[in-house]
Amino acid sequence: MDVVRVLAFAGSLRKGSLHKGLIETSKSLAPEGMEILAFDLAPIPLYNMDLESDWPKPVLDFKAAIASADGVLIACPEHNYSFSGVLKNAIDWASRPITETPFRNKPVILQSTSTGMMGGSRAQYHLRQVLGYLECRQMQFPEVFIPNAKDKFDEKVRLIDERGTAQIRKQLEAFKQFLAPG
Amino acid sequence: MDVVRVLAFAGSLRKGSLHKGLIETSKSLAPEGMEILAFDLAPIPLYNMDLESDWPKPVLDFKAAIASADGVLIACPEHNYSFSGVLKNAIDWASRPITETPFRNKPVILQSTSTGMMGGSRAQYHLRQVLGYLECRQMQFPEVFIPNAKDKFDEKVRLIDERGTAQIRKQLEAFKQFLAPG
Amino acid sequence: MDVVRVLAFAGSLRKGSLHKGLIETSKSLAPEGMEILAFDLAPIPLYNMDLESDWPKPVLDFKAAIASADGVLIACPEHNYSFSGVLKNAIDWASRPITETPFRNKPVILQSTSTGMMGGSRAQYHLRQVLGYLECRQMQFPEVFIPNAKDKFDEKVRLIDERGTAQIRKQLEAFKQFLAPG
Amino acid sequence: MDVVRVLAFAGSLRKGSLHKGLIETSKSLAPEGMEILAFDLAPIPLYNMDLESDWPKPVLDFKAAIASADGVLIACPEHNYSFSGVLKNAIDWASRPITETPFRNKPVILQSTSTGMMGGSRAQYHLRQVLGYLECRQMQFPEVFIPNAKDKFDEKVRLIDERGTAQIRKQLEAFKQFLAPG
Repeated sequence: MDVVRVLAFAGSLRKGSLHKGLIETSKSLAPEGMEILAFDLAPIPLYNMDLESDWPKPVLDFKAAIASADGVLIACPEHNYSFSGVLKNAIDWASRPITETPFRNKPVILQSTSTGMMGGSRAQYHLRQVLGYLECRQMQFPEVFIPNAKDKFDEKVRLIDERGTAQIRKQLEAFKQFLAPG
Repeated sequence: MDVVRVLAFAGSLRKGSLHKGLIETSKSLAPEGMEILAFDLAPIPLYNMDLESDWPKPVLDFKAAIASADGVLIACPEHNYSFSGVLKNAIDWASRPITETPFRNKPVILQSTSTGMMGGSRAQYHLRQVLGYLECRQMQFPEVFIPNAKDKFDEKVRLIDERGTAQIRKQLEAFKQFLAPG
Repeated sequence: MDVVRVLAFAGSLRKGSLHKGLIETSKSLAPEGMEILAFDLAPIPLYNMDLESDWPKPVLDFKAAIASADGVLIACPEHNYSFSGVLKNAIDWASRPITETPFRNKPVILQSTSTGMMGGSRAQYHLRQVLGYLECRQMQFPEVFIPNAKDKFDEKVRLIDERGTAQIRKQLEAFKQFLAPG
Repeated sequence: MDVVRVLAFAGSLRKGSLHKGLIETSKSLAPEGMEILAFDLAPIPLYNMDLESDWPKPVLDFKAAIASADGVLIACPEHNYSFSGVLKNAIDWASRPITETPFRNKPVILQSTSTGMMGGSRAQYHLRQVLGYLECRQMQFPEVFIPNAKDKFDEKVRLIDERGTAQIRKQLEAFKQFLAPG
């Protein structure tokens, strides 16, 4: 039986990032037949169109990783009522040039967490407009928002909240179906 | 008579950026009694909360420049139906820590241009949600969108379109009133 | 001492509407010196520009009620990830003609509740874009979202949730300051 | 050869509505093998959950019309920087009960026009969030925005602007492919 490969990246760079934690948690919860690979956005520079004459290697790696994956999992932090600049910067790079973006038709799911009660939802709804433009194949439901994040992650930054892990399990299972051919 | 000082920054890093051009154009169109100073976002690194233990100098400079200005002009590019990652990254830095952000109550205006017919409007409406969270004092009208940017800028990247320059002139004049005490 | 008068309306028409309940709750929690009056949207017809030649009486009443109030409280339901059509319809009427809309410069606060975990936030962020266009003077914080509404209202549809009532109390107190002259 | 049937409705009720005009224009521009039927939203009452115990006939008709169509064309006016209340009200009805909404998986395209320069885009981006929730199958491109509407329609309210009609023709052709089985 074939394995589906999902590329995951988190829009936060700090050590101990909860969004990296969501990806690690997802790895351990992935259903049989799904492999999740994390891509670290740290080496991707700030977008500058002048650099397109000599593409930075991390950007090429990022685009290649998206292109070769069956689907994408974006762990999307909310900063100031929208997605993080770090996340958008990486997406801006991967959208260039728009005629060759690996996002086109790529199946995508989103996960967010926050210390507040919204769980990062404002960021995801902005991000969906971006992914719409990129013509990603967005899975709408189930959505994954983990509110009140404090105390829901252990010291290894794994999600230990029962409701949250059930939500992720459900989302990944649905994504496996979503990725299935015909 | 007192001069009002407006800090301006563009969410695009390339040489010859049209959004830097909007700022240069605004400088030359500013009404008497308004001084516009450009701040270059290039040296601001990608946001990483771990760096808050030892704040990068360009970030401190950026925050100080906002704090000491009477108002802010954001030249906001649209990438993928939202603001650029570069712009959001700088704003994310300047929002930290949220209790001390210089954006709070700061008067703000926006300018955008694009080669398409929308002139960057999708980016501005996302940005307004961010600025709302930051409790900026947003001036709503007149809005500045310069669509179909090709051929509207000269070789020095100054806006030469009559409708566009009139729009900017009107916005800056209104902003001067907006900044006036009581 | 002067009393500030707040006009309140709910974007839901059914008997026992939770958003009407939020308004009744707000009435009983209003700080000294604030009076909250409810306006029922039920008689306002569907917007039709042809009717502007002979304005429906309920629309004229609605506009007059907004105009004479010191501030507005909108109890904003979320239907299908945005504000309700009923609410937007009433606002569309009150915006006409745009040169005479009573919303201009009117101080506004928002309250929402939902049976889900978001408490109606998606509706409020869409509504803020509308109110921005109308140049309302929006108070940003504190926001009022009452999630998981089931069991948080008594049989008279009054909010009995402690966290929720505290939130409303805080919002109304802040709004009183917001409305205070200079 | 089979004909695909597209149900069209306009979020504006006045006689001579430009959005009804977009639908009439689309009828005359539809490619071979596509039939466009207009549904008039005028008889649909304001949404009131209490009426769900005895569904209004126009609502049942509207839901049935959506259900039996292969795809949906929404002519979406922009009022106050979002969709019209009239349009949202009809959609709110058709979404009820959510487990039986005919919008689920229904292919949808959007058309807008406005006298301003944006052509109604702010309304469409809000509407896309609603349609996302309803799990419609949204076609993203080509988008149809007709800005500066004045003088672009003839006395029978047919679009006569060349750029606009070409855009609609292209959209309908793409929609025909979008609707094609496998």
